[in-house]
Amino acid sequence: MNSKAGNHGHHISQQFNAELEAIKKRMLEMGGAVEQQLSDAMVSITSADSGLGARVMKEDDAIDELEVSIDEECSLILARRQPAASDLRLVLAIIKTVRDLERIGDESSKIARMAVKLSEEGEFPEGFVEFKHLGDRVSNMVNMALDAFARYDAEEALKVAQTDREVDREYGSAMRSMITYMMEDQRSISRILNLLWALRALERIGDHAKNIAEHVIYLVKGTDVRHEKLEDVAEQIVDE
Amino acid sequence: MNSKAGNHGHHISQQFNAELEAIKKRMLEMGGAVEQQLSDAMVSITSADSGLGARVMKEDDAIDELEVSIDEECSLILARRQPAASDLRLVLAIIKTVRDLERIGDESSKIARMAVKLSEEGEFPEGFVEFKHLGDRVSNMVNMALDAFARYDAEEALKVAQTDREVDREYGSAMRSMITYMMEDQRSISRILNLLWALRALERIGDHAKNIAEHVIYLVKGTDVRHEKLEDVAEQIVDE
Repeated sequence: MNSKAGNHGHHISQQFNAELEAIKKRMLEMGGAVEQQLSDAMVSITSADSGLGARVMKEDDAIDELEVSIDEECSLILARRQPAASDLRLVLAIIKTVRDLERIGDESSKIARMAVKLSEEGEFPEGFVEFKHLGDRVSNMVNMALDAFARYDAEEALKVAQTDREVDREYGSAMRSMITYMMEDQRSISRILNLLWALRALERIGDHAKNIAEHVIYLVKGTDVRHEKLEDVAEQIVDE
Repeated sequence: MNSKAGNHGHHISQQFNAELEAIKKRMLEMGGAVEQQLSDAMVSITSADSGLGARVMKEDDAIDELEVSIDEECSLILARRQPAASDLRLVLAIIKTVRDLERIGDESSKIARMAVKLSEEGEFPEGFVEFKHLGDRVSNMVNMALDAFARYDAEEALKVAQTDREVDREYGSAMRSMITYMMEDQRSISRILNLLWALRALERIGDHAKNIAEHVIYLVKGTDVRHEKLEDVAEQIVDE
């Protein structure tokens, strides 16, 4: 990647590559921690486990710290190493991805907060099936996006972006069910609203997973595909 | 800022500063466009103007293109100029801010979509007062954050971050009113839910304005204040 000539240059280049790999590894570890947060948040809802919910909310601080620290390391690398081409794209993709990961942590924390509220209400609400279903989908997207980053796999990343459409559809249909529940039983309104916010958080997490996938495509292909039609992106990726 | 020695170096440095100023100007212009989108989206709700709502949704594409193009320019500057210290912080702050601006545009577009839906329902819903009130607050935050960026004013930026707390409180109280409305009149549920999403979008916009303010503090003070207690940040800013 880094193309300095000579033995000394070669040494610097090796060191630099090691630095880049290390920061990417830290980002993927942060990704693993965020995946755990999301999974715990989901369980806290479906098992009405307010203790677990409280723990998820508390651990969000650690995720926030990881974001700041990785972001700082990336700025240092930019300042000291002045990377170009694919190295620069890697550092920028990491900066953007840690921000999405931090937001996924935030949304997980919101889901956990809803779990605490729901468990206070003490009743098993409608909509858990819809929640579990959407949650599994979205968790899978996050996992695939991180996996695509780890392996620089633009095709896998494209699949994540495509899944986001289905998630949006499923989210819409879950919403309609919730509204029906609310209309059928007025006393359930505030309880079901809590679940509605949790569903909304899942949908946001899907968006962030899609963002990460787009950072991967930018990193691998060198083109910014945000806001482009998925069909056009697919063509670009397959063409090569 | 750029500290290359000699006449040639001085020339490069002047050119570079001009480039930085130009990209900052483009970011602020994007900010102005986003402020207009937010303002139009709010009017589309309170005047039940579905035509204006549709226009806001359509113009979101132009905002998206601005984000991609400014982001690309920043990457080019990083690759070609390899800035350090405050120049580097400026470029990174711009990259992050355009992303927040794009999200504000997105949320404005969501508000506009709710306006279109609400005008289909054909009735003047409860909650417009709460919406207008919160919307004015949040618009003001966006304006102040951009202004703080333009003038590198960390104290102004801190005020924005502080306002976000009040917005969160007002959002909570608006939410409770909406839930009461829904409980009082079951037939209003789906209509009021639309307004609920619009309120939620405003609250998010407040978060993004706060993010921008934090980028300004990072830019001016060189420290990352995200996730820090506002009291501590205030102390840091006043100390100097």
